[in-house]
Amino acid sequence: MNSRRDFLRKISASAFALPFLPAVSRQSANQSFDETYQGPVLRVAIMGLGSYGTRVAEAMKDCKMARLTGVISGTPAKIKDWQSKYSIPAANCYNYENFDGIKDNKEIDAVYIITPNGLHKDQAIRVANAGKHVICEKPMAINAAEGQQMVDACRKANVKLLVGYRMHLEANTLEIIRMRNEGELGKVLFFQGLSGFRIGDPNQWRLDKKLAGGGAMMDIGIYSVNGARYMIGEEPVWVTAQETKTDPVKFKEGVDETILFQFGFPGGAVASCLSTYAMSNLDRFFLNGTKGFAELQPSTGYGPIKGRTSKGELNLPHKTHQTVQMDEMAGMILQDKKPLVPVDGEEALKDLKIIDTIYAAVKSGKKEEL
Amino acid sequence: MNSRRDFLRKISASAFALPFLPAVSRQSANQSFDETYQGPVLRVAIMGLGSYGTRVAEAMKDCKMARLTGVISGTPAKIKDWQSKYSIPAANCYNYENFDGIKDNKEIDAVYIITPNGLHKDQAIRVANAGKHVICEKPMAINAAEGQQMVDACRKANVKLLVGYRMHLEANTLEIIRMRNEGELGKVLFFQGLSGFRIGDPNQWRLDKKLAGGGAMMDIGIYSVNGARYMIGEEPVWVTAQETKTDPVKFKEGVDETILFQFGFPGGAVASCLSTYAMSNLDRFFLNGTKGFAELQPSTGYGPIKGRTSKGELNLPHKTHQTVQMDEMAGMILQDKKPLVPVDGEEALKDLKIIDTIYAAVKSGKKEEL
Repeated sequence: MNSRRDFLRKISASAFALPFLPAVSRQSANQSFDETYQGPVLRVAIMGLGSYGTRVAEAMKDCKMARLTGVISGTPAKIKDWQSKYSIPAANCYNYENFDGIKDNKEIDAVYIITPNGLHKDQAIRVANAGKHVICEKPMAINAAEGQQMVDACRKANVKLLVGYRMHLEANTLEIIRMRNEGELGKVLFFQGLSGFRIGDPNQWRLDKKLAGGGAMMDIGIYSVNGARYMIGEEPVWVTAQETKTDPVKFKEGVDETILFQFGFPGGAVASCLSTYAMSNLDRFFLNGTKGFAELQPSTGYGPIKGRTSKGELNLPHKTHQTVQMDEMAGMILQDKKPLVPVDGEEALKDLKIIDTIYAAVKSGKKEEL
Repeated sequence: MNSRRDFLRKISASAFALPFLPAVSRQSANQSFDETYQGPVLRVAIMGLGSYGTRVAEAMKDCKMARLTGVISGTPAKIKDWQSKYSIPAANCYNYENFDGIKDNKEIDAVYIITPNGLHKDQAIRVANAGKHVICEKPMAINAAEGQQMVDACRKANVKLLVGYRMHLEANTLEIIRMRNEGELGKVLFFQGLSGFRIGDPNQWRLDKKLAGGGAMMDIGIYSVNGARYMIGEEPVWVTAQETKTDPVKFKEGVDETILFQFGFPGGAVASCLSTYAMSNLDRFFLNGTKGFAELQPSTGYGPIKGRTSKGELNLPHKTHQTVQMDEMAGMILQDKKPLVPVDGEEALKDLKIIDTIYAAVKSGKKEEL
């Protein structure tokens, strides 16, 4: 189980500096590691060493084209822990004051920003200005205006900007998109997305308007926003939305607890979605067309994703989403690979514009055009 | 298979005139007919001998407390056919001109109106004025104002007014309501109703505004309107709604094809529903509470209804809905039985008021208070 970890511990730091990893002897019981892989490798620093950062780091152990080579954190104890767990050399460790120094670090190609939403914009711009590619957890920013600044900064710095849309690379999801594209569902008319869970600790940053940019919508509702778009395969033209709040103490002004929202699409399809921090059992996508339906339940959790269509169950094998994502993103950055459903800054900007409009529709109580 | 039908053929018309049917020898392979039943029997005339009227007539063969004893139709050939199939004496056959004559017919206690929606109000008032109980298919009328006239007329005539809400008497549905009432789902926060099918023949009365009163909402959307209320167990306080129409030739002005609608409830729960004549595969209710969920899929079809909750599958035996309904309604009319979820005119009026408000919300584009 630990052979890959052991390998990472033993391998010298200088090895990571090579864009092409040498084929050394490696064994692992639980990975599809390609022993003979000699292709390009994306060397990634993770910024923000929380639970999702840890999940990504663990998943990257099984990556072929991506390697964890650096960390950025405000907590020295975490850095020390990660250094030992993932064999990170001291030279590749940064804090939030000095990380602009990655500019001169030849062992880091990209930084994966996994920090509170409200910090993404400034952090991403600093990474871009340091000449490194930006991978950013979603939501890319707390609104479209900030997102646009990130897109502009990365374009100007000539670095890639990718966003952690792991579902765009998930096999069952992609199979449904294939079925839809090939007309197997007929004309698509309806999408339903349910995205929610009961959030715990009232003092976490996700319930702090300044850091989170909002509430459930920014964190979990975005899956239905995004899912509506990739499942229907069109961009919505109008939005309506309704908010309800059962716990105004926990969910303060500007932090949404539950929002229902609806989209209309140019082809006549409609979407009906729920975003909530107050209910569990909500992780379902349903796509309905004139010839058939497709369901994903769970639809966006860490998996295994379960798919079912009018033709039967989907049984595509589960692969750790973050492993797939990081390998695919390495391909996008290093080889200019184009995914079927984009995961770039422009894509993320579309979601942010829609979320801005959802919040506007909640306020106006009216149908808002997009 | 036909023994009950044979029995109905052989028995003399006068037997139906008795409020207490004599215990005669009866055998049937496919019914739970109580051989020894000596209790009261509701003698029903069906008005409107279309496909749903036929379904009710067939289901009534297995009723204990309800008997088909008369028909009202504008088509002499249909009357002849039903006379022979259900042993209806000529004296109990009426057309739409002369059915006020049921006033003097001692073999008819109630009339089940199964005609186009736009005709219900006048027909129900005539039945009430003839001193007979009214059972009316849903929607009770094409708007709340007409529904109110029906309620008033029945109250004035001192007859009962019941509406064909067969799901209020369905075992799986009632089990979920029991679970909710006993707190097994925790605080209920979300209901989702999907009600729709692809409607065929563009020339049918259901697509005629004057006869149908609307489109999918009046026919199938009403299940989600009604379901939201009995599943959540509260009355909504606000409505929002969005319409979309992909086929304006088939679905003319005033005939809705697809409407998304949302409700807010006093306890903080929200409902998100779809009504459509343009999509199949839509017959699902989902109720979500803080302690668990309940799903019905199919939820309102003729059955078997399939229920599933966070505690597991519901496996309550299927009984033909219309048989259960007519027996239960006989109990309500003859013995003043009170169902757990009402099926009376006041209940139907609530749905009509909400449907009026849904249509208003579609027009205004705003949240409408109830």
